[in-house]
Amino acid sequence: MGGSLLMALRRHSPNTKLGAWARREEVIDELRTRQLIDFGGATASDVAAESGMVVLCLPVDRMREVAESIKDAVSPTTWVTDVGSVKQPVVEVLENIFRPHGNFVGSHPMCGSEEAGLGAARADLYVNALCVVTPTPNSRADAVRAVSGLWSAVGARVCAMAPADHDRAAAVVSHVPHVAAALLTELVGGEDTRFRKMCAGGFRDTTRIASGSPDLWAAILSSNRSEVAAALEKLDILLGRLREILEKDDTEALRSFLAGAARRRGEILSAS
Amino acid sequence: MGGSLLMALRRHSPNTKLGAWARREEVIDELRTRQLIDFGGATASDVAAESGMVVLCLPVDRMREVAESIKDAVSPTTWVTDVGSVKQPVVEVLENIFRPHGNFVGSHPMCGSEEAGLGAARADLYVNALCVVTPTPNSRADAVRAVSGLWSAVGARVCAMAPADHDRAAAVVSHVPHVAAALLTELVGGEDTRFRKMCAGGFRDTTRIASGSPDLWAAILSSNRSEVAAALEKLDILLGRLREILEKDDTEALRSFLAGAARRRGEILSAS
Repeated sequence: MGGSLLMALRRHSPNTKLGAWARREEVIDELRTRQLIDFGGATASDVAAESGMVVLCLPVDRMREVAESIKDAVSPTTWVTDVGSVKQPVVEVLENIFRPHGNFVGSHPMCGSEEAGLGAARADLYVNALCVVTPTPNSRADAVRAVSGLWSAVGARVCAMAPADHDRAAAVVSHVPHVAAALLTELVGGEDTRFRKMCAGGFRDTTRIASGSPDLWAAILSSNRSEVAAALEKLDILLGRLREILEKDDTEALRSFLAGAARRRGEILSAS
Repeated sequence: MGGSLLMALRRHSPNTKLGAWARREEVIDELRTRQLIDFGGATASDVAAESGMVVLCLPVDRMREVAESIKDAVSPTTWVTDVGSVKQPVVEVLENIFRPHGNFVGSHPMCGSEEAGLGAARADLYVNALCVVTPTPNSRADAVRAVSGLWSAVGARVCAMAPADHDRAAAVVSHVPHVAAALLTELVGGEDTRFRKMCAGGFRDTTRIASGSPDLWAAILSSNRSEVAAALEKLDILLGRLREILEKDDTEALRSFLAGAARRRGEILSAS
């Protein structure tokens, strides 16, 4: 996420000075070598002190620690955002940490892939992606404008949503599909290994996201667990209905269920 | 399936005379215009009578009817196969219909997409795809060789499997993922329509196969319903375990589950 953002800003905003901090020093070295940053620092706080806008590209369970470390370095005119996939708990923590200034607004750019690290970074990652910005009644209007402007500048479509609404939506459109992909993989994994050679395009696509980082996703699912649990309960109810239809061998109900899903998928994607 | 096979045979076996029958006459007209066939007929039986090999490219619930209509036209030296996604019930019916000659062997080329019809046909559809050929103790060895040879000729990797093993495998690697894709689509479909704009790449890939033909898939799931039901029951058990882990907020167990699935997916795909 961070590497792609630097590449995108270099391309779309060549006069902007860019800086970065990362836990692993070799990442900063590589960013320098690739001329993706103009400055780096030994600590997050050093980099934040020189910045007009700070983007926290971190797993959701590491936001608090880094935010605490930079809070005294950022000025009231430094905007702060994050790219966490869960918003309500992250926004609550970060808004509180940056409360003296009111300059934090959460973001969730909905893109990326199951790959991670600088090797997977792409300058066009954000082009046409949706970026949800999640202001609250505490957010300063100029902060919301600045953060929205950042994402627009790298080509994203920006929409605003309350953090809790974002999390309810993310549970059904992203977190539960991730769980399902992992479950489908485990289902095949538990069967006769001879079956594996039959895994074709359908299996590959349906389970692609199951190859995502386990650490990252455990933190996401855990942070959003009440919404994910509620959505999984609904999924379980739908599954129960489908199992009943199969048990009764009601081909007409099966056809109608599948036709509904196929139609619905078209509607959903044309609205996305 | 049928259109792609004709295109592939034209490319890989240009001296083979090709014929086709289809319910809709305009399909035959288009095949002629595109010079994909050398002969066609008013009935399936006419075409079968002129053929050394017959490939039934039909939904699984329509195999019996067409097979009955051609059984008196095919000679003992005419090999017959099908491309049905479910094998045990299809093979049972077709083997019985063609029993006098013992010249039927089932096939399942594991490729295709959620699109259907001649417009979606591709000459390279079978290249590197797995084609499962499902002989039984009743199959003639020369029929198995001829049918396997057909799929090899269009670039597929061929493997042999008993029909029942195929169906158990297909339930977990293909049919249950299809059901899951439909359920995930319905889950999003039942929520606030504002959530739809957040459906990104993960949702798109995970649910891709839900756009497949409802008629075709209702027939597939219904024909293989005992295996699909058994696999869905296992999926439900895995889902229950995951829901428990979430309820306990056991991040370590969550991480270990996701790490297992990510590793397993790599193993599965490298064996496929």
